[in-house]
Amino acid sequence: MEILVYHKGKPKIEEGFTAEDLPELLKDQSAVIWVDMESPAEADERVLLDVFKFHPLTVEDCRENRHYPKVEEFRDYIYFIVHGVTADTSPERFNTIELDGFLGPNYVITYHHDTFRSINNVKQLLRTTPIACQRGPAFLLHQILDQVVDFYSPVLDDFDERIDQLEDDIFTLKRPNNQILSEIMDLKRSVLRLRRISGKQMDILHRMSRGEFSLIPEDMRPFYRDVYDHLVRVVDLAESYRDLISGSLEAYLSVVSNRLNEIMKVLTIFSAIMLPLTFIAGVYGMNFENMPELHSRYGYYAVWAIMIVVAVGMLLFFWRRGWIGAKTTSGEETPES
Amino acid sequence: MEILVYHKGKPKIEEGFTAEDLPELLKDQSAVIWVDMESPAEADERVLLDVFKFHPLTVEDCRENRHYPKVEEFRDYIYFIVHGVTADTSPERFNTIELDGFLGPNYVITYHHDTFRSINNVKQLLRTTPIACQRGPAFLLHQILDQVVDFYSPVLDDFDERIDQLEDDIFTLKRPNNQILSEIMDLKRSVLRLRRISGKQMDILHRMSRGEFSLIPEDMRPFYRDVYDHLVRVVDLAESYRDLISGSLEAYLSVVSNRLNEIMKVLTIFSAIMLPLTFIAGVYGMNFENMPELHSRYGYYAVWAIMIVVAVGMLLFFWRRGWIGAKTTSGEETPES
Amino acid sequence: MEILVYHKGKPKIEEGFTAEDLPELLKDQSAVIWVDMESPAEADERVLLDVFKFHPLTVEDCRENRHYPKVEEFRDYIYFIVHGVTADTSPERFNTIELDGFLGPNYVITYHHDTFRSINNVKQLLRTTPIACQRGPAFLLHQILDQVVDFYSPVLDDFDERIDQLEDDIFTLKRPNNQILSEIMDLKRSVLRLRRISGKQMDILHRMSRGEFSLIPEDMRPFYRDVYDHLVRVVDLAESYRDLISGSLEAYLSVVSNRLNEIMKVLTIFSAIMLPLTFIAGVYGMNFENMPELHSRYGYYAVWAIMIVVAVGMLLFFWRRGWIGAKTTSGEETPES
Amino acid sequence: MEILVYHKGKPKIEEGFTAEDLPELLKDQSAVIWVDMESPAEADERVLLDVFKFHPLTVEDCRENRHYPKVEEFRDYIYFIVHGVTADTSPERFNTIELDGFLGPNYVITYHHDTFRSINNVKQLLRTTPIACQRGPAFLLHQILDQVVDFYSPVLDDFDERIDQLEDDIFTLKRPNNQILSEIMDLKRSVLRLRRISGKQMDILHRMSRGEFSLIPEDMRPFYRDVYDHLVRVVDLAESYRDLISGSLEAYLSVVSNRLNEIMKVLTIFSAIMLPLTFIAGVYGMNFENMPELHSRYGYYAVWAIMIVVAVGMLLFFWRRGWIGAKTTSGEETPES
Amino acid sequence: MEILVYHKGKPKIEEGFTAEDLPELLKDQSAVIWVDMESPAEADERVLLDVFKFHPLTVEDCRENRHYPKVEEFRDYIYFIVHGVTADTSPERFNTIELDGFLGPNYVITYHHDTFRSINNVKQLLRTTPIACQRGPAFLLHQILDQVVDFYSPVLDDFDERIDQLEDDIFTLKRPNNQILSEIMDLKRSVLRLRRISGKQMDILHRMSRGEFSLIPEDMRPFYRDVYDHLVRVVDLAESYRDLISGSLEAYLSVVSNRLNEIMKVLTIFSAIMLPLTFIAGVYGMNFENMPELHSRYGYYAVWAIMIVVAVGMLLFFWRRGWIGAKTTSGEETPES
Repeated sequence: MEILVYHKGKPKIEEGFTAEDLPELLKDQSAVIWVDMESPAEADERVLLDVFKFHPLTVEDCRENRHYPKVEEFRDYIYFIVHGVTADTSPERFNTIELDGFLGPNYVITYHHDTFRSINNVKQLLRTTPIACQRGPAFLLHQILDQVVDFYSPVLDDFDERIDQLEDDIFTLKRPNNQILSEIMDLKRSVLRLRRISGKQMDILHRMSRGEFSLIPEDMRPFYRDVYDHLVRVVDLAESYRDLISGSLEAYLSVVSNRLNEIMKVLTIFSAIMLPLTFIAGVYGMNFENMPELHSRYGYYAVWAIMIVVAVGMLLFFWRRGWIGAKTTSGEETPES
Repeated sequence: MEILVYHKGKPKIEEGFTAEDLPELLKDQSAVIWVDMESPAEADERVLLDVFKFHPLTVEDCRENRHYPKVEEFRDYIYFIVHGVTADTSPERFNTIELDGFLGPNYVITYHHDTFRSINNVKQLLRTTPIACQRGPAFLLHQILDQVVDFYSPVLDDFDERIDQLEDDIFTLKRPNNQILSEIMDLKRSVLRLRRISGKQMDILHRMSRGEFSLIPEDMRPFYRDVYDHLVRVVDLAESYRDLISGSLEAYLSVVSNRLNEIMKVLTIFSAIMLPLTFIAGVYGMNFENMPELHSRYGYYAVWAIMIVVAVGMLLFFWRRGWIGAKTTSGEETPES
Repeated sequence: MEILVYHKGKPKIEEGFTAEDLPELLKDQSAVIWVDMESPAEADERVLLDVFKFHPLTVEDCRENRHYPKVEEFRDYIYFIVHGVTADTSPERFNTIELDGFLGPNYVITYHHDTFRSINNVKQLLRTTPIACQRGPAFLLHQILDQVVDFYSPVLDDFDERIDQLEDDIFTLKRPNNQILSEIMDLKRSVLRLRRISGKQMDILHRMSRGEFSLIPEDMRPFYRDVYDHLVRVVDLAESYRDLISGSLEAYLSVVSNRLNEIMKVLTIFSAIMLPLTFIAGVYGMNFENMPELHSRYGYYAVWAIMIVVAVGMLLFFWRRGWIGAKTTSGEETPES
Repeated sequence: MEILVYHKGKPKIEEGFTAEDLPELLKDQSAVIWVDMESPAEADERVLLDVFKFHPLTVEDCRENRHYPKVEEFRDYIYFIVHGVTADTSPERFNTIELDGFLGPNYVITYHHDTFRSINNVKQLLRTTPIACQRGPAFLLHQILDQVVDFYSPVLDDFDERIDQLEDDIFTLKRPNNQILSEIMDLKRSVLRLRRISGKQMDILHRMSRGEFSLIPEDMRPFYRDVYDHLVRVVDLAESYRDLISGSLEAYLSVVSNRLNEIMKVLTIFSAIMLPLTFIAGVYGMNFENMPELHSRYGYYAVWAIMIVVAVGMLLFFWRRGWIGAKTTSGEETPES
Repeated sequence: MEILVYHKGKPKIEEGFTAEDLPELLKDQSAVIWVDMESPAEADERVLLDVFKFHPLTVEDCRENRHYPKVEEFRDYIYFIVHGVTADTSPERFNTIELDGFLGPNYVITYHHDTFRSINNVKQLLRTTPIACQRGPAFLLHQILDQVVDFYSPVLDDFDERIDQLEDDIFTLKRPNNQILSEIMDLKRSVLRLRRISGKQMDILHRMSRGEFSLIPEDMRPFYRDVYDHLVRVVDLAESYRDLISGSLEAYLSVVSNRLNEIMKVLTIFSAIMLPLTFIAGVYGMNFENMPELHSRYGYYAVWAIMIVVAVGMLLFFWRRGWIGAKTTSGEETPES
């Protein structure tokens, strides 16, 4: 449990307090107190119940760590859950980490089970420019939420890049294999998860920015609206990525389908040329006594001529259908045909 | 019919009452009376009409056992139907069991046709810690509902596992057969049913937690909101499972499609190599008298050479197209090619 | 036109009135008058305009017989259209029959073009237990609507059965033919129609049960809510059937796809084994003078040996790929392979 | 510009007025004036701005002729756009024609670029039964809208017929070709357009019939509600047609898929029977010196026997798989097999 | 930074002011001041904060240039973002350019990073007919928005044309290749983006035209409603294009599927004719000593006769199935068959 306190007019954030100091600190209505709990010991957790008198169910919610983003108003505090992206999140595996928190008249409490990058960034910021606290706990909370949402941006850019790469792979590569399919599936799952989480988060920020909670004063709302706008963008991008990925799957299936057509064309052309020739050869391999052609001097050469005519005829037939030559069905063939 | 009564200040739950004692018991406004009916005899059912004066239609609803979750408010009681999961529920076959009930000023009535695990758990709990009744019938009902919803969790975990297993099966196994398809269909049906039931249940808890019913006092609402949050999670997971299963079906179809391509490639490669060779052999099997090559000393060996050239040429042709060799189309081929 | 009249306190329903008696009958505010018109003559229809003073447009609506369920409130009466299922309805062809009607302060009028099973049932009921009329025209109407909705249940059960049968057919039968496809299409159309009609009917009952119409007194609402609950169930089942049928179509397409794979595998295995063997035979069918193998004593047997090795090699190749043997791709093959 | 005027009590509609008479005519509050403009000259259009003082933007909207149905209320008039179906509309090409109009306290103005069948019908009606005007301009407008919507009915019937025909074509015809596909696409586009237009029109009538506009008096609303009901039916049918057409496409794709299976079966059966036979013949075409069978007296007949056994065995193999004989996969085969 | 000022009664727009003049200019409440900033220097941007006192977050939003359309009301000004289409937008690549702006009691401020065609058009207009400013800043803003939306029209027409072309390509061309698929994907992405952007823009105009902002006086609303109507049309077209493109994809896949059927038919017909003939030839190529037919005088001719009968029989078999001849499966074949 780390406690950061800002007193009006003081040039620096004060640190190094323990749980015992809290009751005293909270009495100063003009102070801004931030209590950050990273996987707290049970004794620390007690503070939430005993000093802050939070509802036992919310404290249990903090501990459980498998909740969706939400915000709840109680008599004199707001309880919220938001999700940040983890450092190892990739477009194929979108992971989030839960941040629980409370906003009171003169305090902000954050609770998380692992290191939280946004929290650390804000702490760093406060230590250098404590002035940020001057505008009260709602502004401090805004800064935390802003940081949380900011970490979504690089993930979105990764998505963009990966989808572009994927479409290239589908159309240009010679190996439309299960790997591509598996990647499409992973991306789809990630983007659906991103859409779901950020959608819920957007609802929370919407409620915070439209003045539903008296703990967030009116002059703070444009700042929350800014975070909200950011989340609208995230949700919008998530939706457009979902559409793109669906399109990729359709494209992939079509390319596989086109490829099958290609394969079947090759097979058909080969068979259609070779089968008649083999038949002709077969005919003159028969052992009938009375086969005049066999005794003709130029019979053998005549048969070769016939075979060439048949083969060329077949090639022409397929060429006219557009199966061979310039009118290739899929671009990838050009080098060979 | 089992009756459990808690009197204020008493250290233990009293049991062993019969229907005849009910009118007397109900007079004590401060008592908390729980009447649990498991496939009751008609005489017991009478009590609902005669002692509690419930609307005949609700009692009929209790008996019929094929209703969806709902909640209805009457003058001085609430009638509700919720669904618990049966003990034999699996991701392939999601079954629920109906629990009807009434909440009055000083009583809770539960009505079900089979053994209900959640009910038994709560009874067990009350017998050991009767203090739970101290907060009134609304809290007792909350505990029952909480237990009912808690039993959804293992089912959801099973879904998660099964879908993971399924995706593995689709991509890695060598037998993408109708069994997989049939399992996908079963999972889909289950998850749709889960979504439907839990969605309706969520609506009920939403109404209970937002203060629509005066029988649920304000200080109880956070507890109902907690159950509601749990159901939101269930619904959300059901939706994401539905998406995953749809994705699985698409993946399955794609894998089948890829496999067809593989099969056709094998056929085409075989045909394209063998047909020309057979043709060449056929040519020199002809019985023309005048075939100079046949009398050449090295004709036979020359033909073998031609055949090898043709075969290697074909292999090269297909290798350049990426049909054979390193550029395998589906991972499964690697060991053989 | 059939007129049934119930007078307070009378032990029996009175019948046998004609249109001329209506003005007199209607004066008794405490009576319950039911006028049932089955494809009425024009003179009878006049009564609606002249005696009851209904809006001409509603009477026209009655006559036209191609309307969707709806309910409209006029100054002192309610006009409604509901749809009953016809006796010949099957899951493949879902047909409904229109029932128009009016509810006034002391009368119910029903209008239909063909025999209506629910109407006949209610008449039968009234003749035996006229007490049902005692609660006023709103209760009488409830009974008619309840009967209409009750006739949906067997149709729903038929759907359930037919879909189960269909899924069996898709997975187990050896003939996934256009017949199955055609049946899927018929079921889909029926279920969409069922969903549409019952959805509109549900809306009507919702409006009737929530107290929108003053002609339906408050104590009648639980009865209408009961019919509404029944329709909610119908709509819900229709939706789940729709999902199931969509799933069936997907399954059907997959099974057809799997079957194609099977067919292609058989073809490929046959070709891959037979083509090389035929080639080898072709080689030794050549007529070169100098072919040492031909003169070898054991050449013929050696060739047989080679052929067997090739054939077994091919079988092994396909077995290792899982194309033959234990790892069957679709269950149906097992008996043969 | 054609002007029809009805004066209270007069037995006939007066016609033959010009734009100059309008200011005088409009002074009579009890008259009903209908000004119909068919692709008016600029001078006529001026009247809208100068005499009626309509907002310039609405007059511009009239002229532009590429708007969707809408209705807008101004201080003392309503401006509306509705779409009628053109005379050459077919299910494959659904076309609409725009009708702009204004409703004032004692006038109706209609504006269109081409001959409008509904307008002509109403004019005809007014000339024979001017009494229709007695109920005021709102009733006149109702009659025009009613006529416009009535012309949708034959188009809907055409859709019905065409879709039925289409489904027949898909299942029974031997040519599931691109023509069918192209027709499905055309129908789909038409039905989407129909859905869109009639949906917007429905919204307009809904607003008109629920009393939003004071220019439509309460006793007129049942008439507008009647037109609204008609449009609800149109929208509903459009939606069900859309579903049917989607189903047709799925059926078409399935039938094509089934046909591919049929083709492949034929190929596989032929190959599987002929390849082994050809191989056997090839074996005894080899020229080894030492081939005892060749010298056997009945060798030739024995080989024929073996061939027949192989062929029958293959047929049996495929018959047991259900590929040939009674268990046909698609109905179309029956005559041949 | 360009400043255009209109003073009441003055015949011309005044230009050539600098940032320093602004405080003085703004004092004249009856003037209409337009400040246009094209990628402004930091000093210019300062003006927004220092002279106009805009909220720092909105100024930051202006600078960032990756926001979606939105509108926000502050105490005495409105901040908005709209998107115009870029000059190089094509149906395959739909690009927009952001326009930020502020509307105050006597000023309009526009802020953009690149040349904005609509802005230039409006400036040109004002210089020639300054009267347009007479109606106040809200009318000036309307003119800018109107211009922005007008530039969407040619893009929509391009879409229309391109989709038509695409459908032609799919059905008539002999090369249904990945290029078509890739184009479908590009169009789909563009149309989804168009739908998203114009949908948000429509919401903004809806809010502006329904009187939500006091800075837009009531007599201006019809003008904003006109722009709104235009956007409704854009959104509607975008939706119908999206449907058409989805249909195109389905058509494309079907055509590919049909083509595969065609290919397989050709292969099957060839194989089914050639394999039996080759077999027959093979039979009489066997070297049995005792083969009576070989010694028959007309054996050779008889075999030819048999072969012809078999070939014709096969052709008949396929002709009766509708695989060859008049009943072509896809129109494209006709010239060859």
